This record gives sequence, structure tokens and C-alpha cells, in this order.
Amino acid sequence: MESREPLTLTALRGRINQALEAFIEADNHYLTEIGPELVPVAEALKGFLLDSGKRFRPLLAAIGYAGSGAELSPELIRALSSVELIHVCALIHDDVMDASDTRRGAPAIHKQFENLHNQQELSGSASQYGIASAILLGDLALVWASKMLHESGVPAEQIVASLPIFDEMQVELMAGQYLDIHEQALASSNVERSLKVARYKSGKYSIERPLHFGASLSPKNTSALYPIYSAYGLPLGEAFQLRDDLLGVFGDSAETGKPTGDDLREGKRTVLMAMTHERSSLSQRAIIKELFGRPDLDSDQIKELQAIILETGAAAHLEELISHLTQQAITAIDNPVIDITAQELLHQMAIIATKRSA
Amino acid sequence: MESREPLTLTALRGRINQALEAFIEADNHYLTEIGPELVPVAEALKGFLLDSGKRFRPLLAAIGYAGSGAELSPELIRALSSVELIHVCALIHDDVMDASDTRRGAPAIHKQFENLHNQQELSGSASQYGIASAILLGDLALVWASKMLHESGVPAEQIVASLPIFDEMQVELMAGQYLDIHEQALASSNVERSLKVARYKSGKYSIERPLHFGASLSPKNTSALYPIYSAYGLPLGEAFQLRDDLLGVFGDSAETGKPTGDDLREGKRTVLMAMTHERSSLSQRAIIKELFGRPDLDSDQIKELQAIILETGAAAHLEELISHLTQQAITAIDNPVIDITAQELLHQMAIIATKRSA
Repeated sequence: MESREPLTLTALRGRINQALEAFIEADNHYLTEIGPELVPVAEALKGFLLDSGKRFRPLLAAIGYAGSGAELSPELIRALSSVELIHVCALIHDDVMDASDTRRGAPAIHKQFENLHNQQELSGSASQYGIASAILLGDLALVWASKMLHESGVPAEQIVASLPIFDEMQVELMAGQYLDIHEQALASSNVERSLKVARYKSGKYSIERPLHFGASLSPKNTSALYPIYSAYGLPLGEAFQLRDDLLGVFGDSAETGKPTGDDLREGKRTVLMAMTHERSSLSQRAIIKELFGRPDLDSDQIKELQAIILETGAAAHLEELISHLTQQAITAIDNPVIDITAQELLHQMAIIATKRSA
Repeated sequence: MESREPLTLTALRGRINQALEAFIEADNHYLTEIGPELVPVAEALKGFLLDSGKRFRPLLAAIGYAGSGAELSPELIRALSSVELIHVCALIHDDVMDASDTRRGAPAIHKQFENLHNQQELSGSASQYGIASAILLGDLALVWASKMLHESGVPAEQIVASLPIFDEMQVELMAGQYLDIHEQALASSNVERSLKVARYKSGKYSIERPLHFGASLSPKNTSALYPIYSAYGLPLGEAFQLRDDLLGVFGDSAETGKPTGDDLREGKRTVLMAMTHERSSLSQRAIIKELFGRPDLDSDQIKELQAIILETGAAAHLEELISHLTQQAITAIDNPVIDITAQELLHQMAIIATKRSA
């Protein structure tokens, strides 16, 4: 038996980071050879990609692959890591769409380019320049995702087998994002609609599809894995989104990187808020109507809204739901079809995705 | 010899339109099954894709393929037509980046969704909703481009051979777009820099790469075609862009779909304006400085700027340059390596791309 590195999340994350770093070095070099004007584009994308480290989706893709019992070669790691670049596009464009000026405590990409416009005293509107740049950087990240997969060195027949899921994942992302912005723009909350948004954005795009994508790249027969990964991914994705709802209202700013109660200031229509609304009394609704979505909420007003969410029992109900869904996901992977090490890693991922701190 | 339809631009355009229509019908159906909220997304993308009819880039891809002498099957037409969806992304995002509210005389996508927000009395900012929707629709079009290529039915080894060029074309598009917005934001004009923007946006992305992409999909050995297509595509792309510069200043609004002199109101930094600036007297520069880029220019002021552009000889110089570059392109394809019918079609495309009306 050949010796190989033990398959741990930390080891995998290290290999994914290496692959992403090597890709962006090479492609940034190409970009800046086109012209020195592109140096800020290259630097901003590199910073954005390498400053974050969770690698949630590539990890799931790698585990989805490993579940088939096939060996994770460097070529495979490159191919699987490409999903992180899809996510870079999603986040950069998301910040433009939400007009949110910070990401992980630093200026969002559109803000970085707005600042560059001001510093270099360029002409025209600095904010428009920032938006245009962020749209293009997001587009470029999406193109790079495909490029990284295509040139990974994985045998052509495996690449071709993975393309339908790679495409599907992106269609579901864009559809989920549109459902989300549309939901935010509706005047009323609705638990069912909010759950559908969670299903597309988190269940499918963030968990189920990365696992499927990993399986589709395996040279082994993986047809039995797909339904198991769905049975794990969809409930876990929902639980993950519900945890995010709770963190957006109750999370500690040191851990989430956003001010406590940020979703309340933003007026974000989440499952949590839809449930709160359903369960609230007339007087509670009046307070919600007055305060929810006001950007200038002070910490007492935040506390007042938090108290209502707790009093209605919506938060406790969400906690129960998260436990139930997580358990459902964990039960689904207790199946000998999946490689035993991958089972263990999926178990760990389920805990990480739904734990009470960010 | 088997009978087949004669290869004409009109026949090819018809086949490309059919392929695009079939694709969007199927994928819109999928989209609206996710939820009725996505009906406006599906309709807007369909309208945008099918309302325009030039199909410049898919035609070039088809001719690039036909140059190898291989037969254009329905599967191949599907694969080649995918480049039109890249262009749909480029145009939708371009209108957001430029904040231009009309496209081909109709509201731009971001404006359509802003209107929808107003009509349905949604909450939040209508213009932000419009921008967010347009970003997502553009993203979706880009994903669809890949999907249409991948599921075209062309043999896997031909698809795989085409992916590096398909990716490259998109990287060059995004790089060219950034060079363009950066150029617009610089306080000074520069002929050389403007030519580089033209080279990336028009030479490479619009002409050279579609031809290469077509060649890369052929089952025949096409290595001799690539340099010839570059020798045709790069000068022709430049000529095409220079014609666009002239149309943006002197074009008839009935033909361009934009008000006459639109580039002057927008203050668009083109090669034409850079050349005008280089050749202008101090008094002419003072007038340019006062008027160029003012959105409220009346028709007398437009005429005044047009007169300066003519007086400096910049327009005449551009006409000469267009003739010279077009001739260079036409000379390059006089080569027996290219199938004779494809040669004739490339000749026709060169005339269409650079003719004096839009």
C-alpha cells in the first residue's frame, strides 16, 4: 500500500489554498502583461481570494470526490478548488447588489475601486467606477473558475463528466440570488418563500452541488453517491442558512465580522424574521414595523427587536429545526457506499456548518 | 456528393437564431419551474437575446469552423452559437457599468427591472433592484454560454479542445472592458492606449477569438488556420472599432439606434477623439474642453464639435486607416489553406464590419 497524507480537513484546506494561490499567481501574471492598468485588478482579486480561508465549497467538493474512494491527486485538487472562484464572483457581485461597503471588515471590492478613483483623481463618478470594476472583477472570477477546472490536468473524460453539474451549480446560484433580492423587495414576509431561497442559495449551491461536482470528477462509478449527497446536502444547507439567520441577529461582531444585529438594520427578510412575524402579537408587530430595516438602529433598539424574536419563540424554534435538520443530514451519510474517511469528514463539516459561533 | 444547403451568411444566421431560440426556450422553462418569481428573468433574457439579429460573433465562429472544410452539423451550430450568450452578458453588464438606460431604443435590462419594481410597488430602492437584477441576468447569460457549448452534442474531444480558447476569449473581454472603463476615467486622451482598448475589445474578443473558437471545434487539423485568422481578425477588429468611433459621432440615429453625436455627449474617449485632440489648435482644444462630455449638448454644439473633428483631419485619417486595415485583413485570407467558401464569407464579413452605415 502506498503511503499517503491522512485525509483531514486541515490538510485538505492546505492543499486547496496552495492550488488557488498557484492559479492566481499564474493568471495575474498573464493579466498584468496585457497592461499595467490591470495591476489593481490582479491585486484586488488576489487579496480577495487569499484573505479568506474557510474554503467551505472546495472542501465539500473534495470530500464528495473522496467519498468514491478515489485518490485526490494534485490535478484533482486544482479541479475541485475552482468552485471557490465561483464563490468569489458571487460575493463580489453580492456586495454591489446589496450596496454593502465592507466584507470581512475590509472595504468591499467596489469600494476599493471607488477609493482608487479618488486617490488617483480620475474623472467621472468614483462610485460608478467602483461598481463597474466590481462587476468586471466578479465576471473575471467566474471565467477563471471555468479556466481553473479546464486546465487542471484531470483527464478529459472526467472533466467532461463534471461540466453539467458545474453549470447547474451556477444556474442555481444565480436563480437563488435573484429569488433572494426579489424576496427582500417584497413587502411581506413568508416562511415558505424564505425557505426556498435558503434551499437554492445554501442547500443546493453551497452543499449539495459541490458534493455532486466532486463525485462527478471521480473515475469510479459514483451513481449511488448522488442521492446520498442530496439527502445530506439539502437539510444541512437549510440548517446552515438558518444558523446564518440567527448569527445575523444575535452573532458576536468579533466572530461574524459584522456589527451585531446587522440583519435587523438591513431589514433582511430571513426565515427567522418570517417566523417571528407569524408568531408575533399586534403590539410586537407594531414595534417590528417601526424598527426593522432602519439603518440607524441603536443598541437598545437592536435589543428590543432581539427580545421580540426570543419572546415569540421563533429563535428557539429555529434552534430545534437546525438540530433536527443536522441530525437528518448526519443520518443520511451513515452508509457504507461512502468511503469511511469521507463519512467522518462529512460529519465534521455538518458540525462546522451549523455551530453556534461564526 | 451529398446535397447540402449553400453556405451563405443569411442561411447561417437563420440556423444560429434557431439554435439560440431552442436553447433559451428549454432553459427558460427550467428556470420558471424553480419559481414563478423567475418569469420576468426568463422573459427579459429571451427578449434581449432574440430582439437583436446581427449574430456577428457566432457567424465568425461558424466561418472559422467552415474554413477547415468540415461540415456544419446542427450540434456544431449549437456549440458555435454559445458565443452570442457571452455577448449578452457583456452588453447587459456594460449598460449597468455605463449607467446607460437604453439599448437598441428599448429600456436596458437594469431599467426594465427598475420599472418592474415601480409597477409592482416593491419595497426598497427601485434603481438598486434594477442594478442587482441586471448583474444576475448577465451572470446567468455567461453561465448559459458555457452550458450551451457543453450540452451541444458535439463529441467530447472537440469540446475539450475548444475550452482554452473559449476561456481566453472571456478573459480578454473582461480585461478589455476594464481597460475601457479605466481609459474613460483618465483625464487625458492617448491614441496608443485607445488603440489597445480597441485591440482587446474588438480585435481579439469580437473577431480573432470567435474565428479561433470555430477552428478549435473542428475535427480536422486546423493549426495552419490560427495565424491566418489572427492576421485577418486583429486589423479588422481595429477597423471595426474605428468605424464605431466615427458612427458614434457622425452616425445617423435611425441607423445606430442612438441619438446622433451620442459619444460626444457621453465624452467617450475613443481613438477618434484622441487623434482629434492631438491635431487640434489651442482654440479648438478650448472648445472641446468646454463642450465634450456635456450631457446637455444641443444640435448646434454637436455640429460645432463635429466640425472640429473634420477640420483637424482626424476623421479623414481614420477613414484611411479603416481602408488600410480592412485591405490588410482581406489580403490575409487570400490563402488556399482556408476553404474557398469560407474565404468568400470572410470577405463579406470584412465589408459588413467596416461599412459606413451601422
